[in-house]
Amino acid sequence: MGLDHAVTKPHEQLAAHLAGEMEAVNALIRDRMASRHAPRIPEVTAHLVDAGGKRLRPMLTLASADLCGYDGAYHVHLAATVEFIHTATLLHDDVVDESQQRRGRPTANLLWDNKSSVLVGDYLFARAFQLMVEPGNLRVLDILSNAAAVIAEGEVLQLSAARDLRTDEDIYLQVVRGKTAALFSAATQVGGVISGAPEPQITALYDYGDALGIAFQIVDDLLDYQGDTKATGKNVGDDFRERKLTLPVIKAIAQANDDERAFWKRTIEKGDQREGDLDHALTLLNAHGALDATRQEALAWTDKAKTAMQALPDHPVRRMLIDLADYVVERIS
Amino acid sequence: MGLDHAVTKPHEQLAAHLAGEMEAVNALIRDRMASRHAPRIPEVTAHLVDAGGKRLRPMLTLASADLCGYDGAYHVHLAATVEFIHTATLLHDDVVDESQQRRGRPTANLLWDNKSSVLVGDYLFARAFQLMVEPGNLRVLDILSNAAAVIAEGEVLQLSAARDLRTDEDIYLQVVRGKTAALFSAATQVGGVISGAPEPQITALYDYGDALGIAFQIVDDLLDYQGDTKATGKNVGDDFRERKLTLPVIKAIAQANDDERAFWKRTIEKGDQREGDLDHALTLLNAHGALDATRQEALAWTDKAKTAMQALPDHPVRRMLIDLADYVVERIS
Repeated sequence: MGLDHAVTKPHEQLAAHLAGEMEAVNALIRDRMASRHAPRIPEVTAHLVDAGGKRLRPMLTLASADLCGYDGAYHVHLAATVEFIHTATLLHDDVVDESQQRRGRPTANLLWDNKSSVLVGDYLFARAFQLMVEPGNLRVLDILSNAAAVIAEGEVLQLSAARDLRTDEDIYLQVVRGKTAALFSAATQVGGVISGAPEPQITALYDYGDALGIAFQIVDDLLDYQGDTKATGKNVGDDFRERKLTLPVIKAIAQANDDERAFWKRTIEKGDQREGDLDHALTLLNAHGALDATRQEALAWTDKAKTAMQALPDHPVRRMLIDLADYVVERIS
Repeated sequence: MGLDHAVTKPHEQLAAHLAGEMEAVNALIRDRMASRHAPRIPEVTAHLVDAGGKRLRPMLTLASADLCGYDGAYHVHLAATVEFIHTATLLHDDVVDESQQRRGRPTANLLWDNKSSVLVGDYLFARAFQLMVEPGNLRVLDILSNAAAVIAEGEVLQLSAARDLRTDEDIYLQVVRGKTAALFSAATQVGGVISGAPEPQITALYDYGDALGIAFQIVDDLLDYQGDTKATGKNVGDDFRERKLTLPVIKAIAQANDDERAFWKRTIEKGDQREGDLDHALTLLNAHGALDATRQEALAWTDKAKTAMQALPDHPVRRMLIDLADYVVERIS
């Protein structure tokens, strides 16, 4: 590529390796997000699509197909499908969370309105389903429509679980699978399926995507309590202020005495937060080793992702995917 | 059925004729709207599903399959798919329109919140796609995923077109196809496709559903200006007050002089409505024969629906579908 010496991060290595195919994915996305009749659709979509993001999910599909020796053209459709599902969920998430910013720009719900975000999201879901039908592979359809259901179910579960102190690690894991891991694992799995890869490789691709997605989300939740604002772009304590029951807090609550329980009940469940509460929360998280335990958990999922890759053939992309798993936890190691 | 003497309306005749299959559809809907993890999902869905409604769309799928001699079990899946898509769009519509009532009950967005309506709607869309994959018929998938895209596109188009005086009859028709006709025509068409019906019959089923859906929506828009509140449950002038550019108004605007244009601009585009405006609007609609012309258009679409049925085999269901087309316009004839 002539740029190899400058490429250090694994997702950049993947992007360089898959540059031609990613261009095809981007062209397909641009083509399919058009609407003959409703110009609002490409306006809203372009706002989000042009803002970039790493395009990690479509790259996972292309990489998996590449790794399994696929030589057709439909991995591009599936990669675009995955990105459309992701974009649709972002639009709906920002409505649900009343978010103001996404990828460093004002959100669509702020620039246009909630109506546009809901309906354009629906349009992108429908376009995703049209795209995924085109390869004519029923197993792929099964995997992606199941992923869409798990995503929506996880989001609904989060509505009720987020501020409920009874939320345990099992429920957290279900929410995380819905929020993040279901689309990661579908993205990798369909890359294998479309290639006609042997069953153990398809299972390994699923396991890799699942574990990578879970590690990714746990890291995100951990950084919210111990991140460096400059590096992460997030403010420490956002999740606390938004009363989200994430893994560190769940672990601390599991070990809480009566006073501590009352503290979490007041701040998270009732939302009555006062000066100094975040500091006290951090003290409790550290006292119970909750941040360390969360970090260990993220590392364990990363190991699981890397182990899964052993079932795949030796190939430059396999190395990049293993590096990607390490990269996800690099910020907390 | 033992009840035949009491059954007079065509949709009731269809319901009686298809009672066993509709029961299977309802059982499948109940089964698939469940969620192991998120009890909010069946709560919200049941609120809407149990409220009833005529189940017209799934009946169209069952009736079409019946008419084409289908003897498998997958028409039940497709009928449930169609109802799930319909229910999902109702949930999202009520958020977008900020509606308070649906089927005589408070809307889900009012009872729970917008978040639940958005996310449970997404879940039902995903469940619909899972269901439609099961018969393993790619053409059916193509038709239903296209319908979902047309529906969402029509809804977005309506956002920008509803209060824009440049909206003409072509745009109105696109919106109506999205709002109503696309799901009607997909419902009838997939009934033919799953039966392996000859191509001209499949086309005729599509045409029937398309024309029926358009007639249905035009009648709705007409009744808003000349309905009997007791019979329709709607208040005369709701669309006017909500500044919706429907067919009667579009026809009146096409013939408006400068003063009249200024009136429509003020009331619909700017939303500055005063005492007596609705009466004046009705005067203008009558002066230009806009209500009569709208009625004629609904009748013409009904004729088109009935003519399409000529391509289908002679069968009791064919008679019921023809009667159904007449019934749709009965309230305005």
